Amino acid sequence: MHEDIAERLAWVAVDWGSSQLRAWGLDERGEVLARGGSDKGMLALTQVEYEPALLEAIGEWLPPSGHVPVWICGMAGARQGWCEAAYLPLPARLDQLARGAVAPAVGDPRLNVCLLPGLCQYADGAQRSFDVMRGEETQLAGLVAREPGFSGLACLPGTHAKWVWLEAGTVVRFATCLTGELYGLLAGQSVLRHSVADAALDEPGCREAFTDAVREAASAPGRFSQQLFGLRAADLLDDSLPHGQARRARLGARLSGLTIGLELSALTDELPSDAAVTLIGNATLCDRYALALSALGRSSRHLDGETAVLAGIELAGLELAATGMGPAHPTGETP
Amino acid sequence: MHEDIAERLAWVAVDWGSSQLRAWGLDERGEVLARGGSDKGMLALTQVEYEPALLEAIGEWLPPSGHVPVWICGMAGARQGWCEAAYLPLPARLDQLARGAVAPAVGDPRLNVCLLPGLCQYADGAQRSFDVMRGEETQLAGLVAREPGFSGLACLPGTHAKWVWLEAGTVVRFATCLTGELYGLLAGQSVLRHSVADAALDEPGCREAFTDAVREAASAPGRFSQQLFGLRAADLLDDSLPHGQARRARLGARLSGLTIGLELSALTDELPSDAAVTLIGNATLCDRYALALSALGRSSRHLDGETAVLAGIELAGLELAATGMGPAHPTGETP
Repeated sequence: MHEDIAERLAWVAVDWGSSQLRAWGLDERGEVLARGGSDKGMLALTQVEYEPALLEAIGEWLPPSGHVPVWICGMAGARQGWCEAAYLPLPARLDQLARGAVAPAVGDPRLNVCLLPGLCQYADGAQRSFDVMRGEETQLAGLVAREPGFSGLACLPGTHAKWVWLEAGTVVRFATCLTGELYGLLAGQSVLRHSVADAALDEPGCREAFTDAVREAASAPGRFSQQLFGLRAADLLDDSLPHGQARRARLGARLSGLTIGLELSALTDELPSDAAVTLIGNATLCDRYALALSALGRSSRHLDGETAVLAGIELAGLELAATGMGPAHPTGETP
Repeated sequence: MHEDIAERLAWVAVDWGSSQLRAWGLDERGEVLARGGSDKGMLALTQVEYEPALLEAIGEWLPPSGHVPVWICGMAGARQGWCEAAYLPLPARLDQLARGAVAPAVGDPRLNVCLLPGLCQYADGAQRSFDVMRGEETQLAGLVAREPGFSGLACLPGTHAKWVWLEAGTVVRFATCLTGELYGLLAGQSVLRHSVADAALDEPGCREAFTDAVREAASAPGRFSQQLFGLRAADLLDDSLPHGQARRARLGARLSGLTIGLELSALTDELPSDAAVTLIGNATLCDRYALALSALGRSSRHLDGETAVLAGIELAGLELAATGMGPAHPTGETP
């Protein structure tokens, strides 16, 4: 089995985030031969632990000899990660990410590692605020790989949700919302933790509780802080709610709707009325965002996150192959 | 010393919250003879532990014989506290709080304990949402004790900040904002924790960072979630910020301004332009709120929180003395 993989392995793609790494082994045609991963994200690793963590995830796929390209996006390229791949400033062409890639020194001769850069945005006193991304730019490159010259608005939901404006395959602006983290802190650690539970929206009443909350927060974002405490008060006083777990699910759906509605509030005026927002990520979370957008009268379409990141990494690899260049080597290391 | 207190002690006032209790021993004229307290708040106690915790705080003041009235406001009267003093619904006259008081059974014959009720508000589909308070109503009663028939808007900043509309000494509406808790979670446990520090606003640049943030959040509350992540991005990218602790203080002042500005956003239209908001609480926090209100062109005045709670409890005691009634005894207990 592993020998089969090793024989056909052409390259490896890795999405290495703060809390986990996900790796894919691919053949020459871009077919996924193997999947791996671990919870050894950037936050759990010191610099010298990256290569062992990588080998733990993909070592079994590697042929005994050879030099396999390993393309990595995400927090492994942060300053506090394996080796810094400095942010590219906007505007940033997504078919040119490889120009900001760096190659960390590795001990295992079978590895040819390349870290892709993130993007940064400087404040311009108007629409653009200081902002950064690492990892999402590679998923966006995947969108552009599939739809060259893409223009429009993309959203990548998550702990730190990204909204990205693209023009002709170039990122011209983006904004990050702390939505997922805010939800997690409120649901898990605030006074609301006794009143809410994570809810699938197909539980009775949860879908409506979610969309009502989206509309309330989007139309009156200034009441967000009151709406939050209102969840606790409703738990104490509202006789119209069900009891027990169903009550907590209903209030959890409402909390999720409030945080996503707050996120959408400032964007409502900018959401295209004539074109769909492109949601990139896992289906469950993108479905929830699609429902929230729909509650505000907007349409969306979905691009799977894994598909996007693989297409984005492949695009970076093609760029490098086309230019005949290897990645830059970080300052202070011998190529 | 303690014998002096015991000779002159007329009554005891206790503000018993979620995380601490504060107690005052007073003479017949309402002069404070002694102060005590501990971190044995409601969250740290089971029902049978309240009387020992109370005796630990005030036992030394009690005369060997006698029957000292002990008036308690706050979470000790919650359902999960010592003994439930059920919420009074709105509209609630603040000079009649004693009518909702209950007396828990106590073992020590020197104690005559009375728990004051909180207030609750039912949603009316318009301005009023479900809401509850416990403890703040007694501080508001103190405002009314000092200014009988008070009408106006009062704010009690804190973990859960209360905004309260009073008409002729009666609470007609209130709204709770999760502001303090939100700030604590974001500053202490989110990705922002690396970028911010609690800041006194007299540190260089902090006052302006705070007031700018108040105005930004109040005028564009829908951007709150973006503004939060913007603190992290500014820490990474903004060369105009100082370094080290001064940088974190500046960003901490900004985070404080964003959370308070969000709270004020929905209230801006309701803030009286011709009258001052009455801020009740400790001076440091009330000063910060006064500055925030001032940044939005509104005026305020300050009533010290301890003064307010003592005046409120005294008012309740006077009411009971005037009616000649003792407090109600909770259901199921023998008076």
